[in-house]
Amino acid sequence: MEGLLFVVSGPSGAGKGTICGEVVRRTEVELSVSATTRSPRKGEVHGKDYFFMTEEEFLEIVRKDGFVEYVENFGKHYGTPEAFVREKLKSGRDLILEIDVQGAAKIRRKFPQCVQIFILPPSLEELKRRILNRGTESPESVALRLKQAMDEVECLETYDYFIVNDQVEQAVEAMISIISAQHNKVGNRAEEIIRTFKEA
Amino acid sequence: MEGLLFVVSGPSGAGKGTICGEVVRRTEVELSVSATTRSPRKGEVHGKDYFFMTEEEFLEIVRKDGFVEYVENFGKHYGTPEAFVREKLKSGRDLILEIDVQGAAKIRRKFPQCVQIFILPPSLEELKRRILNRGTESPESVALRLKQAMDEVECLETYDYFIVNDQVEQAVEAMISIISAQHNKVGNRAEEIIRTFKEA
Repeated sequence: MEGLLFVVSGPSGAGKGTICGEVVRRTEVELSVSATTRSPRKGEVHGKDYFFMTEEEFLEIVRKDGFVEYVENFGKHYGTPEAFVREKLKSGRDLILEIDVQGAAKIRRKFPQCVQIFILPPSLEELKRRILNRGTESPESVALRLKQAMDEVECLETYDYFIVNDQVEQAVEAMISIISAQHNKVGNRAEEIIRTFKEA
Repeated sequence: MEGLLFVVSGPSGAGKGTICGEVVRRTEVELSVSATTRSPRKGEVHGKDYFFMTEEEFLEIVRKDGFVEYVENFGKHYGTPEAFVREKLKSGRDLILEIDVQGAAKIRRKFPQCVQIFILPPSLEELKRRILNRGTESPESVALRLKQAMDEVECLETYDYFIVNDQVEQAVEAMISIISAQHNKVGNRAEEIIRTFKEA
């Protein structure tokens, strides 16, 4: 059976990275690897953290329509290579793709069977507290992040599942349950399941 | 939030009872209690195993259209009292309702939001082995059960989820994951979730 594609979004500060990392550690699910033109940071591994490539290589893939979605950020490109995702799924591997709300919509168009999960903090108040606790953001930047968070949360209804990240452990378990349950959906598999039952 | 209604079907010998019993033991989910006109067996408790009632009491509820579904078996009546189910769900409790394929269809009509789970043995061969192992069935009765099993399995596509009961422990975990995931569905709750996020 083909693997399943899980698309995970949520405002910065919701804890997506922590939750997805823990899910990957505890299960056989893998994180999707993006391509980027930015330089590797210390410890980052090509093919694991990112596919690092030159501007020319990146634009060549863009020309061939090889990215499910791509964006530019501070002059650097980031993209989700369609071939990588399709091959992983074909090999039977589940994939998690962390991406913002705009990216998620693009992925749904190319992978209509994907399962979309939205992670949100327990409250706007708590999100504010988490962002302030980092101590690295200017007041303007905090205000901007909260505004962005509100905009993202307004897109919740286009998602299949939501997880309120109050306690990380519970949020991780919720996500593992969602992934597990997805493998038990009948969907359009009834005929295949009945055949296996009769012939096994 | 209202509780969720899980309808569980599957051929005799699939292990529905064992799985549901274990799920109820490990979670807060409750089993729905049916009404019946048959006599209590030793150890059976009114209101827990069944609502035991007289023929007159049962038919009075039928007249008032108070059963989601009811059947007659060997001259005794069995029914699912609608008021019981609605009150449990209203109180926020999840309910499991074990029922055959015909009953499940009736329940879906009265509770369109219910989640239907089909439990099946790993194979027809294994089902045959399980039924023969009981040692209580005549050859004709074994053949009839297998025929019934095939008929039931053919209804799989009307179910939301399937669980192959190969190892009981895995089947129990699969069912708990399905129940858990169901609580994280966005469905028509987006507005409520966003409101909670903003105002909490």
